[in-house]
Parts: sequence; C-alpha cells; structure tokens
Amino acid sequence: MSIVVVGSVAFDSLETPAGKREQALGGSANYFSICSNFFTDVSLCAVVGDDFPAAHTAWLKEKGIDVSGLMHATGKTFHWKGRYGSDLNEAQTLGTDLNVFADFDPKLPAHYADAQTVFLANIDPDLQRKVLSQVKAPKLVGMDSMNLWINIKRDSLIETIGMVDVLFLNETESRLLSGEHNIVKAAKGIQALSKKALTVVIKRGEYGALLFQPGKPVVFMPAFALESVFDPTGAGDTFAGGCMGTLDRALTKNGVITDADWRRAMLTGTVMASFVVEAFSFDRMQSLTAAEVVARAKELQAMTIVDGGVDIG
Amino acid sequence: MSIVVVGSVAFDSLETPAGKREQALGGSANYFSICSNFFTDVSLCAVVGDDFPAAHTAWLKEKGIDVSGLMHATGKTFHWKGRYGSDLNEAQTLGTDLNVFADFDPKLPAHYADAQTVFLANIDPDLQRKVLSQVKAPKLVGMDSMNLWINIKRDSLIETIGMVDVLFLNETESRLLSGEHNIVKAAKGIQALSKKALTVVIKRGEYGALLFQPGKPVVFMPAFALESVFDPTGAGDTFAGGCMGTLDRALTKNGVITDADWRRAMLTGTVMASFVVEAFSFDRMQSLTAAEVVARAKELQAMTIVDGGVDIG
Repeated sequence: MSIVVVGSVAFDSLETPAGKREQALGGSANYFSICSNFFTDVSLCAVVGDDFPAAHTAWLKEKGIDVSGLMHATGKTFHWKGRYGSDLNEAQTLGTDLNVFADFDPKLPAHYADAQTVFLANIDPDLQRKVLSQVKAPKLVGMDSMNLWINIKRDSLIETIGMVDVLFLNETESRLLSGEHNIVKAAKGIQALSKKALTVVIKRGEYGALLFQPGKPVVFMPAFALESVFDPTGAGDTFAGGCMGTLDRALTKNGVITDADWRRAMLTGTVMASFVVEAFSFDRMQSLTAAEVVARAKELQAMTIVDGGVDIG
Repeated sequence: MSIVVVGSVAFDSLETPAGKREQALGGSANYFSICSNFFTDVSLCAVVGDDFPAAHTAWLKEKGIDVSGLMHATGKTFHWKGRYGSDLNEAQTLGTDLNVFADFDPKLPAHYADAQTVFLANIDPDLQRKVLSQVKAPKLVGMDSMNLWINIKRDSLIETIGMVDVLFLNETESRLLSGEHNIVKAAKGIQALSKKALTVVIKRGEYGALLFQPGKPVVFMPAFALESVFDPTGAGDTFAGGCMGTLDRALTKNGVITDADWRRAMLTGTVMASFVVEAFSFDRMQSLTAAEVVARAKELQAMTIVDGGVDIG
C-alpha cells in the first residue's frame, strides 16, 4: 500500500486570532503526508530551497515518509503569508513568494511509479497531469485545487479533473467552478465536467463536509465542535490525508473501496483535521497518538446518533 | 398534552431567487402551530387585523389547532416584506408594518393556563414574560428571539431567558448575544446568562443545528441536503415546532424528557423545516403526510451513519 503525493512544502507566516507565527513549516504536501502517514505508506514529491531545515526532512524520514522525491533547488523555499479573522473558514493571503516553487518541474523517483494511490495537492493543473503520467497504474487518484486555477487555468483544470476519481474542494471553490450556489447542484455540476464517475468532497470548514458520489445518497460529516481553533492552515490537506489514507488502506486490505470505507474516510479526515487546527503548524501532529484519534472519532460519531426515528401520527 | 404558543400571525411579501409572493400567510406562531400540530395539541395566541382571511382561521381550526387565543383587533394584520439572495440563510428585511401587532397585549383564554408546554416565539421579551405568567405550571418552556431584542431590550431578554428551559437562536443571534464568535463558547456564554439549566439550540440554516445542554456532549443535526430551496421563511419556527412538539409528546408519554428524546426532537425539527422551505408560505405543509416525514427522517439519519470507526495503527 502506498500513496504518492505531489504539492507544496513551504514556510507559512501566519496571524490568527490566537496568535502569530513566523516561518512555520507548512505546505499542502507536508500536511497531507504527515496525516496520511498515520494510515499508510507515503511518498512525497515537492521542491524546497537551500534554506529548508534538514531537521524537518529528517523528521519526515524518521516517521517513515519517503522523501526521495523531495527535490532541492537553489534559492528560497515557497513562502506564504496569511491572516485569519474571526471567521476561520477563509484565509486572507497577504503575500505569496513562490521562490523555487515557480520553476517546480516534478520528477518522480522511478520507484514512485508503482504507487497504488496518487494525491495531487493544490498546484498548477498542468503539473498535476505531469505527475499523474509518471505513475503506471494507480487504482485511486485524488486531487485538490483552488480559486486561482479555476480562474486562470479552467480548461487545464477540467482536463485534470477528468482523469481523477475524487476531487476535494471547499464550498467557495465548488460554487466558483460550477456556477451554482446550491451545494447539491454545485456537486452535480462538477461531476458533469468529467466523463468518469467523479466523487466530489465539499469541505465547509467548521460546518463539516459533504460526500457526493454519482447515484448514491449524500453523506455528511459534521466538524468536531472545538472550543478553540488555533490555526486552520492545513486543515483541508490534513482532511484529504485522512480520507485518502483510509481509502488506500482499504484498497490494500480488500482490493476494493466500499461505501462504508468512504464513510470511514470522511470520519477519519474530519477527526485528523480537528487535531491539526488545535495548534500552529505541525505542533499538534507531533504528539498525536492513534488512541486519541480513535477516541475523538467515537465522540464525533456520537454527536449525530439518534436512537429511533420521528414519533408522529 | 398541549403546547401554548404566542407569536405573530402575519402577511409576508417575499422575494426569493425562486420567485415572488405577495401577502402570503406567515408569522412565527403560524409556522410553529402548523408544524407542532403534527405531534401534539396546540393552542395559539396572536393578534390579527380585520383584513385577515377567515378561511385561514377555519383551516387552522379544521386541523385541530385551538384558535380561541387568536385575538382580533381593528386595523391591518402585521405585514413583513423581505428578500432572500442566493445565501438563503439570512433574510433582508425590506419593510415591517407592525399594524395591530404594535399594540399586541396577549391575553390567554382561561383554559390555556393548564398547558404542559409553552413556546414563546419571537416577540418583545416583556410580552413573552407576560404570556408565561398566565400559564400555571408549565413543565417545559421554550423561546426564540432576534437581533432587535438583543440590541434594544437586552436586560428584559435576559430576564425572560432566565425563566425558560430551552432557547432557540440562529448563529448570528447567538454570537451577538454572547459576544463570542466560536459557537461552543457562544453557547456556554448564553447558558451562563441563566441561573437555571438552559438548553441552547443554535440553528445554522443549511449548515444544520447544534444542541448544547449543560454537562452533556454536543449534539449535531445536519440539514437535509435539498437541491432546491424555494422560500426559507418560517424554517426556524417550523424547526422549533418540530422540536417542541416532539418534546411535549415525550413528556406526555413518559413524564420525562430523555437525552434520546432531545436527539429525536432535533431530527424531527430538521425534517419538518426541510419540507416547509420547499414551497412558499404553508403550501408544502398543506400536503405533507406523516409517512413523508418518517421517510425523510430515515434519509437524513443515513447521511451521517458510519459503520465502524477509524482504521489506524
């Protein structure tokens, strides 16, 4: 079992209502890897500059993440500056220094080509296809994207969407891509962009997440009700890491992904994301244990349980 | 078993993305009564003008709603004009003609005094207490309110809150009342306003509803995923009607309200609200059957079911 993930490894300088952090480690591929590594083997592809701390790479290796696809380039690592107001669902970007990421030309090490599962984190859709073409016969392909690509590379993005099994978008992105405000219509509109059966996962931050699969009932997973959210950065990639990690694990165990696996994937992604937002950067993930994940998943499931139905008539 | 409800009976002139309707029947007590009447006996207290259609009163009577507390005054009935944009969660008020509602002095018929349950829909908190004082020994009291009273009658509102068992507010109102953005902190802040054990239900429109009870785990009920929402007016009062109707019914049957009853109340309120928004005014409620309610509740419950937990370690 294995997932190849391509995306960013970055520094984030952040301001949230809970505090400030300069040059924190971040990036979509980083968040995704650290989370999915709880469930399966992960191989990372990204690029960093010569300012990137060897200690972080060593930590990823120590956790068992394959970093042979972490490319090193001359220059500075991608740096994102952002701020969250009291509405933690949407970040305000204050600055994006692409640095070495501007010339990122992802080349997978030869042994990555046998991966069972691929996750294309949010990068240029042209590069997403370039990575996908380097994996021989993936059984499951997931992807993320963002407003930027919907706005400036729509055709390329739709071409990539047509090649994947599951697309993760947030609510705003799904409305922008589909042109529909109603979330059910938005999901159907996005599914219609692909000739394949496309699973659409719509992330709504503190309002939970919805799973749309062609011809199947909608699945809903509430967010875990947290009293204190410290830093929402990476929540979406961590969510995807928990989902894709769970699905890859199910594929390895049973050769197929059942409806129940999809539901467990939504549960797992939600629980993992609820931990990552409790502290800056990867702070909470460093101490997180499997027992804590299992316990919180039970609490989350209990939130929606109703014994018996409606008493009427 | 019986619920006394006080609130508005009104005309609504509405514009939604789905269409327009002039002088539709509406009002909080109207929506609440018509919904809770599916579950228990309802006695209505409100005021209407001499322009109010006798046919509507006859229809309420025919459904078994006690309208002996529906007061008639000289003048016009309360008229609300509003508009909903693509974000159906919040209405924009275009005009409020209080008319006979301006001098509403609620007097309950003598036989209303024995009600088991009381619901104080959104009216001046002074009047809410005036109604409550006319019921001898209610076992369960619920209330709603709105931004207006939080802003201009905060002390009176808090006095009323101190006398009830359950408070229904939407997300914006709960933030305004508590001064907290985080929804868990907002609920706790509101509970701290009362010396009694206060249940707080926070309604989030298409994002579902949360139930907060002192010392108990948070309960979450997603909204039913609808592809088409025609008119959100009355959704909150219908939700409250389904909740309070279910709780009153449980009280009658078993003398107590269990945690499971509260969860079924959240489920029932959510399902009833999902029907009322499918058409203007009471159009959908007129044709709604118990079988439809039971079937949709099952669909809603299925949205969040996860067999097994997280597969980790």
